[in-house]
Amino acid sequence: MISKGLLKYIRSLQIKKYRGLHQAFTVEGEKSVAELLQSDFELETLLATQKFLQKHTHLVQKGFEVIQVSEDELGKAGSMESNNAALAIAKMKPAPQFSWTQAPFVLALDEVRDPGNLGTIIRIADWYGLTSVVLSETSADFYNQKVIAATMGSFTRITPHYVSLGEFLEKRPLNVPVYGAALEGENVHKLTLQPQGVLVMGNESHGIRPEIMQKVTQPLHIPGRGGAESLNVGTATAILLDNFFRNV
Amino acid sequence: MISKGLLKYIRSLQIKKYRGLHQAFTVEGEKSVAELLQSDFELETLLATQKFLQKHTHLVQKGFEVIQVSEDELGKAGSMESNNAALAIAKMKPAPQFSWTQAPFVLALDEVRDPGNLGTIIRIADWYGLTSVVLSETSADFYNQKVIAATMGSFTRITPHYVSLGEFLEKRPLNVPVYGAALEGENVHKLTLQPQGVLVMGNESHGIRPEIMQKVTQPLHIPGRGGAESLNVGTATAILLDNFFRNV
Repeated sequence: MISKGLLKYIRSLQIKKYRGLHQAFTVEGEKSVAELLQSDFELETLLATQKFLQKHTHLVQKGFEVIQVSEDELGKAGSMESNNAALAIAKMKPAPQFSWTQAPFVLALDEVRDPGNLGTIIRIADWYGLTSVVLSETSADFYNQKVIAATMGSFTRITPHYVSLGEFLEKRPLNVPVYGAALEGENVHKLTLQPQGVLVMGNESHGIRPEIMQKVTQPLHIPGRGGAESLNVGTATAILLDNFFRNV
Repeated sequence: MISKGLLKYIRSLQIKKYRGLHQAFTVEGEKSVAELLQSDFELETLLATQKFLQKHTHLVQKGFEVIQVSEDELGKAGSMESNNAALAIAKMKPAPQFSWTQAPFVLALDEVRDPGNLGTIIRIADWYGLTSVVLSETSADFYNQKVIAATMGSFTRITPHYVSLGEFLEKRPLNVPVYGAALEGENVHKLTLQPQGVLVMGNESHGIRPEIMQKVTQPLHIPGRGGAESLNVGTATAILLDNFFRNV
């Protein structure tokens, strides 16, 4: 049974303001919750079906509240269309200071607003072995339940750094190149890129803001040959990261 | 005003069976409908706001019914969360016979079931200049409204060919290579691929079916270096197509 108070708390965490207030967020679905349980995130509460609890007994050992629930109750508490496994409430981690020495290659997002796109990008960043992502303060919230869902567990391995992006780029160490996705950029297929520096990806509709584009030292373009006007920002991030990591 | 009969017809077209029966489908949103109007698809009916009609007067010249509607009416008729522009009913085109000589490089989808993924893949295929996509009969329906929406207009430039995929591959011309995305495939970064042959992409959860994998002559793998177990099928298609087209 889920108490009314708990249900209200879970639902409040779908709103950014309350996530900030409680420094907590929700994670839904079997794969995501299983990855959460194997990560160093601290849990407050785990709501799970009997089946999930039986399958993952070895993971459910720590000091947090565990409530066995029906699929029906899970459906009502969470935001997913269907969830037959689990929903967890986890504590946000305090964001550590960004360190240029620990991150020779940085993916920076300028106003990527769609939660699904942000989640997909985090999954791709994790695939290529990045451990942090820098985001303009106007980007989607990393802890939004749709972002978390779209990362397919990769949220446990990527640290978000929300920054004033112009200032961040301004203060980068000397000689760090800033790459940026732009339709008028250089053909990436003609370059031999190395994963060093910053790669900036822009907003879904407007691309990189002009004031950020001013800081880009090497605009990059993915050559197309058909009729499509553009690629989705997640797709473009995947192709560019592949171009950076294909030579290492 | 939209009549009750028309509203019922539009809603019926959200179901595959009725799309097949009427050989018609719906297209929603400003960009998609504008691209439709510039294509050789035949329209039955255009529902559009005054603003859309004024902006696109030059496109609305042909022999089909045009009904001016409010945004509110559009919202009620269509499937999009918000649509302040237009909804069109268009006639499906009869699928032409697949021709190997016209398509030296073929993207083939094996049970790609998610409409959003299929739409994204069609947009990517269009970006790289493909003009057709081959799909197993068990893949999502090209004319599904969510597929159409996700293509961002690219549905007007890509012809779908639904086939029995095993038979299709079996009957391919001599010496045509069949590439397939597989975790245990060869590292694409180590190959110099040319866009000739067939590239098979598999189902979201299960990958390529074993009976189709038997026909794959060159499995391909995108090397990852992080913790993510897999990439979304749309993301993987984008990266692989980029690897095929980077050398031409």
